[in-house]
Amino acid sequence: MPQAVHNEEPLYLGVDGGGTKCRALLVDEAGNSLGQGLSGPANPVHGLERACDSIADAARQCLQQAGLGESESRRIIAGVALAGVNVPSMYSAMNQWRHPFAQMHLCTDLHAACLGAHNGGDGAVIVIGTGSCGFVAVGDQRHTFGGHGFVLGDIGSGSWMGLKAVQAVLTAQDGLSAETRLTDVVAEILGARGVGVVEVMTGAKSSGFARLAPAVLKTAADGDAVALNIVKEGAGYIDQLARRLLAFQPPRLSMIGGLVEPLRPWLSEDVNAKVQAPLEQPEMGAIHFARDEQRQALTEASV
Amino acid sequence: MPQAVHNEEPLYLGVDGGGTKCRALLVDEAGNSLGQGLSGPANPVHGLERACDSIADAARQCLQQAGLGESESRRIIAGVALAGVNVPSMYSAMNQWRHPFAQMHLCTDLHAACLGAHNGGDGAVIVIGTGSCGFVAVGDQRHTFGGHGFVLGDIGSGSWMGLKAVQAVLTAQDGLSAETRLTDVVAEILGARGVGVVEVMTGAKSSGFARLAPAVLKTAADGDAVALNIVKEGAGYIDQLARRLLAFQPPRLSMIGGLVEPLRPWLSEDVNAKVQAPLEQPEMGAIHFARDEQRQALTEASV
Repeated sequence: MPQAVHNEEPLYLGVDGGGTKCRALLVDEAGNSLGQGLSGPANPVHGLERACDSIADAARQCLQQAGLGESESRRIIAGVALAGVNVPSMYSAMNQWRHPFAQMHLCTDLHAACLGAHNGGDGAVIVIGTGSCGFVAVGDQRHTFGGHGFVLGDIGSGSWMGLKAVQAVLTAQDGLSAETRLTDVVAEILGARGVGVVEVMTGAKSSGFARLAPAVLKTAADGDAVALNIVKEGAGYIDQLARRLLAFQPPRLSMIGGLVEPLRPWLSEDVNAKVQAPLEQPEMGAIHFARDEQRQALTEASV
Repeated sequence: MPQAVHNEEPLYLGVDGGGTKCRALLVDEAGNSLGQGLSGPANPVHGLERACDSIADAARQCLQQAGLGESESRRIIAGVALAGVNVPSMYSAMNQWRHPFAQMHLCTDLHAACLGAHNGGDGAVIVIGTGSCGFVAVGDQRHTFGGHGFVLGDIGSGSWMGLKAVQAVLTAQDGLSAETRLTDVVAEILGARGVGVVEVMTGAKSSGFARLAPAVLKTAADGDAVALNIVKEGAGYIDQLARRLLAFQPPRLSMIGGLVEPLRPWLSEDVNAKVQAPLEQPEMGAIHFARDEQRQALTEASV
């Protein structure tokens, strides 16, 4: 990596904070990569202070890799992408952070993923991992669909599939719904059956349910009718979500997340035909966001 | 109420502990009511210590009403009915309580409700309130169906209906499912719409969802298709649950809980025809349980 010039030129930091880790990327004015950082959980919904610590930690790693002292933070224009900042109270709570940067521009993880996927340009993304969500940015329009978190929404996601599977197992063992191979599959993963499943999964987090998802998809592929119903319902929702986004005529549509590949065989042909690979990572999307905001602020100031 | 005889005859205490309150009833050997008690939450799943405090408090009130000192606790054979003690770890945790009674016999709230509903005899019950569950006791057979709590089970219950309604409102406002009058109905109750619904309901407890249930039932009765689907799905599950219980040929079937009356018009005729009013309260059921256990212990000891 090129050594950073020790001057007062601005540096751009892109941060993608998630529920399990926080990734950061530092670039110079010309877009050259200066350093990367990887730290712990940075979902402000699960803990504001921890999220701020993780972001600061990842930024420090970037500066260190770039051969720059911590005090150079004051040159940083940061784009920070976080889940949950679409909620007004969370946005303003995060903005009250006494961050070490010259400026901090907050956007949702989805928005950064979209900007990254389409190299800073217009487009749409669907994220399917532990949760699920759709986002489209075309011209001045920006719309988010789905999401809403476990257990209110996130249909078709890993946590949703895992919960549906547990529910199906519990009604099946009561003799109140069709028998399913999911009973054995879930028992093997959880190390529990019968009332033991309830004991293990009561109060479990979204990630605890999401870890069942690959097995649900496999059981569906093996032809189990109950698992098939779950996967088809999830895929049907993702199809609808994709069509909703495509109605805005975005130039590109990408799908991102651990469940995209196993779920794609269940999506409609018309939807699959529109999906293109993401071009860049969300951290780079966060940098695009920060630069755009910066540019706009300068334009407004000069008017 | 008759004054309790100050002697060493046993007293029988029945306790029905729930998520919001704990009811207790004290009777003498002949079954005469000596006193009643009403205290705070006693669901051990939500706090073991608090549950024990509530039970002790309700018992104290009973003794006071009976004109007996606290030390008379040692004459008490207690039947304590609690949610969650069907889970082995919770059962043994509750049994480690250094209770003030001569003896304590633990059973589930469902079992006590069933014994109460059928005057200590065989029968079946379905409870439909914040949660939902079925129980049948015929001869030596005792079976529990459903339940499993929010969000794993409790289908057809108030919390289940409330969650279904919130999910339907969120997908409808995304344009991903049919429009529904529930959007306005939920907005009025929660004082929130759009992303505000997510903000208010994220992490809400089962009771927070259950408070939407009466409005969901009313919106269904008014003919809204989305609300109708929710209510019919819930009622369909309760029908199946009832038929599952009736297969054990219990002499009686009762339904108990705040959602029974509004849900009954949606149940099948064959199920409705079998439902009979409960004869006694669950506290009395817990006393039946304690006396049965006591009798059995004496019989075994004398063999």
